[in-house]
Amino acid sequence: MKRIAFPLAAPLLLISGLALLAPDATRAAEPAAIPEPVKATIATLQKDALAGTRAFEHVRSLTVEVGPRLAGTPRYARAVEWGLKTLKDLGFANVHPEATTLPHWERGAESGEILSPFQQTVHLCALGGSVGTPGNGIEADVLLVPSLKDFEAVDAAQVKGKIVFFNTRMQRTRDGQGYGAAVGMRGAGPSLAAKKGAVAILIRSVGTDKNRLPHTGGTRYEEGVERIPAAALSVPDADLLEAQVAAAQKAGTPVRFRLQLGAQHLPDVEGASVVGEVVGREKPEEIVLLGCHLDSWDLGTGAIDDGAGCAIVIETARLLAQLPQKPRRTVRVVLFANEEFGLSGARAYAEAHKAELDKHILAGEADLGSGRPYSLGSHVDPATLARMDAIAKLLIPLGVERGGNESGGGADLIPLGTARVPAFALSQDASQYFDYHHTANDTLDKIDPKDLDANVAAWLTVVYAAAELPGDFGRAPEGGGRE
Amino acid sequence: MKRIAFPLAAPLLLISGLALLAPDATRAAEPAAIPEPVKATIATLQKDALAGTRAFEHVRSLTVEVGPRLAGTPRYARAVEWGLKTLKDLGFANVHPEATTLPHWERGAESGEILSPFQQTVHLCALGGSVGTPGNGIEADVLLVPSLKDFEAVDAAQVKGKIVFFNTRMQRTRDGQGYGAAVGMRGAGPSLAAKKGAVAILIRSVGTDKNRLPHTGGTRYEEGVERIPAAALSVPDADLLEAQVAAAQKAGTPVRFRLQLGAQHLPDVEGASVVGEVVGREKPEEIVLLGCHLDSWDLGTGAIDDGAGCAIVIETARLLAQLPQKPRRTVRVVLFANEEFGLSGARAYAEAHKAELDKHILAGEADLGSGRPYSLGSHVDPATLARMDAIAKLLIPLGVERGGNESGGGADLIPLGTARVPAFALSQDASQYFDYHHTANDTLDKIDPKDLDANVAAWLTVVYAAAELPGDFGRAPEGGGRE
Repeated sequence: MKRIAFPLAAPLLLISGLALLAPDATRAAEPAAIPEPVKATIATLQKDALAGTRAFEHVRSLTVEVGPRLAGTPRYARAVEWGLKTLKDLGFANVHPEATTLPHWERGAESGEILSPFQQTVHLCALGGSVGTPGNGIEADVLLVPSLKDFEAVDAAQVKGKIVFFNTRMQRTRDGQGYGAAVGMRGAGPSLAAKKGAVAILIRSVGTDKNRLPHTGGTRYEEGVERIPAAALSVPDADLLEAQVAAAQKAGTPVRFRLQLGAQHLPDVEGASVVGEVVGREKPEEIVLLGCHLDSWDLGTGAIDDGAGCAIVIETARLLAQLPQKPRRTVRVVLFANEEFGLSGARAYAEAHKAELDKHILAGEADLGSGRPYSLGSHVDPATLARMDAIAKLLIPLGVERGGNESGGGADLIPLGTARVPAFALSQDASQYFDYHHTANDTLDKIDPKDLDANVAAWLTVVYAAAELPGDFGRAPEGGGRE
Repeated sequence: MKRIAFPLAAPLLLISGLALLAPDATRAAEPAAIPEPVKATIATLQKDALAGTRAFEHVRSLTVEVGPRLAGTPRYARAVEWGLKTLKDLGFANVHPEATTLPHWERGAESGEILSPFQQTVHLCALGGSVGTPGNGIEADVLLVPSLKDFEAVDAAQVKGKIVFFNTRMQRTRDGQGYGAAVGMRGAGPSLAAKKGAVAILIRSVGTDKNRLPHTGGTRYEEGVERIPAAALSVPDADLLEAQVAAAQKAGTPVRFRLQLGAQHLPDVEGASVVGEVVGREKPEEIVLLGCHLDSWDLGTGAIDDGAGCAIVIETARLLAQLPQKPRRTVRVVLFANEEFGLSGARAYAEAHKAELDKHILAGEADLGSGRPYSLGSHVDPATLARMDAIAKLLIPLGVERGGNESGGGADLIPLGTARVPAFALSQDASQYFDYHHTANDTLDKIDPKDLDANVAAWLTVVYAAAELPGDFGRAPEGGGRE
């Protein structure tokens, strides 16, 4: 999964940001200019990173040796072992698990079939968290709806007893905004349809590819509404169903569909995020947090989502630990548990570290694959923007521009945002990301090692600067804790 | 499937061609120059085709209303119905089925799993015609072999009891020659491995994509050799197995694999090719044959293989039937049964039409997807090359160059080639074709309607000229009947 910046909330944030005083105005008021030795170190770090890092090796190891690792499943426990061993082997300090409760959902066998007008089997997958169908499946007529918005106007009498097919197409964009525009049907679709009497929903995969591989992703059931099964058709299969609906309408006949999902919820289990540190040489209690998520969806091997992000942050911290002199502040890597299925790892982290969140001077999460970084966004005290702008200038040689101050920084940072921990976000080119995201196709071959190196170079820049500079970023404006 | 031109055989063909006299030297000796009215008609046909044809509608109809149609399965019977109805509805004459015997192979459930060093399930599919595994599968160590050639040197003691993994990568090329270079392991692999005691084989998919969708395709068992199960891993899964083999070798441990294939052979069934004609106005007994194959593999909906080819030839003939004056000779469309699984439709056709094969003045088959045509190859009496060269000149405005005289023209033309029926081949850009070929991803969305129109424009040119010109192409040199 990923979190998109929240542009709609921006005006509100600016207003509330201006209305606030940074609580740590002293540190925040340090000069914004970057000292020459810091600049020199960053130039060296960038050059060395672009010449080649070990980032690809980290994601290779995770995908080949662990592979799929849905939070709550036994495979996720293997991922935690991998994380602990990897961080220890790489020389991190204070490597440890941080306990959290994980939901346990298993996909089971699943199938779908258009019965009429023209019988064909289709490729689909249950949305994450969907209930299963009764043992012999659900058979019903299909009602095609172009979008959630169109569904508002549909009368319940038309929906009752039907399988609603939400058919919104996702648009390809560099910044991934097409995802936000299309993904609503995945989360809200089942309950909205159930309220009007639907027996199940299908959605067109939220993705930009044309592969016969459906995109899963979490769905949400509203409290008190009947939980109906929900599945995503691959893009070509959504095309096929759409074409059959058109043919049936022309002929005045219904479209009949059979859906079988073996999905089930099992009791919650105990799991963990994995944490390791490069302890600061002067201010070890002050923390720059580098996040990614260790869990993945079950269909692929979790290379781009989020093996790539873990590789970027692990490698960034590893290279900082190699410096002749460690950074002033502590660099903490957190491989969050369960980003995909409710952020329980992120919430547990925020709760467990409540007392030191005001010492978290900056946080970022890498969770948008391996595409090249092109923009540095942030969510910091507006009084410290000059500092972030100065850091952004150091990214220009890497082709990274300065973005706005309304970037949340990653889904796992939401609980930290609520606590007003400042955040940065290195936006990555997501043009290809949603071709593979949440599908079986999320595999190692989709990653170019040089792209990871470019990300590491950018992360090294921001993280080293934040960990080394005398000044910090105050407290973030309110409103950073929303999805 | 497709057939690649046979360049290795070319020197031999040239020699035998020169040694022969064309039996119909009179017709063949007609002037090669294209009369102006023919040129004018062709220019109009090209212009109208490029402005838009109904070709896409034919393949849409076939893929949406029939979909997968493996020869011998009940779905293929639906395809025959579709073919008869479509040709009749479009106004073809003499529309009829031509009976042939079809093998009946069913895939059944299938799965694969790396058990060690790192447990992961993989995406694979049985090769067409493979035997199944025993009910609870085959579990064995894996022996990776880079190619068939490397396998020659491997000692039987190393192979005995193992699953041999042939790991040859296919190269992407415009002309599809990478296919010929890699596909040997698919056909010959099982028997070669069985002779050295292997219990099953896996191959890296013969394809140029990176999708988690394996490529099927026919395999062949040698008589008298044990028939062992054979499956293709998707490209990312072949990468995964390769990486695990490397890790295991480093650790000195074996790679353990479990394979389950539910494939089975059932009794042969009766089926049919579908034939329709545009009857010639002057020489109805002389035939220009336009072929494609009606069957497809079972995984996709057979859009590029060979819905596209059928759409091209059906639309070409339909547009010729619309001319104010029908062509001089008969244009016969043959939707061949069972190209993929032994060419039984093509063999039955050649046998049934034995007496009139010398009246087949030219034949072509469209079976390389929807990529744009770029070259006109042929296999005609060398004495008539000037005529084919003159036709080729009319293709220049379409971006089509003249190829050589060693093009077989399509797998279903092999039995006709044996009977020395002259052939042409409009080579298509196959750069993307092998991304989808024989996979679940062979679906309608892979086809751009404008590409089909460009093919129709080229086919109209060659077919109209061949059906209208006074002269013909003699008899093809010997050697055209080989694969």
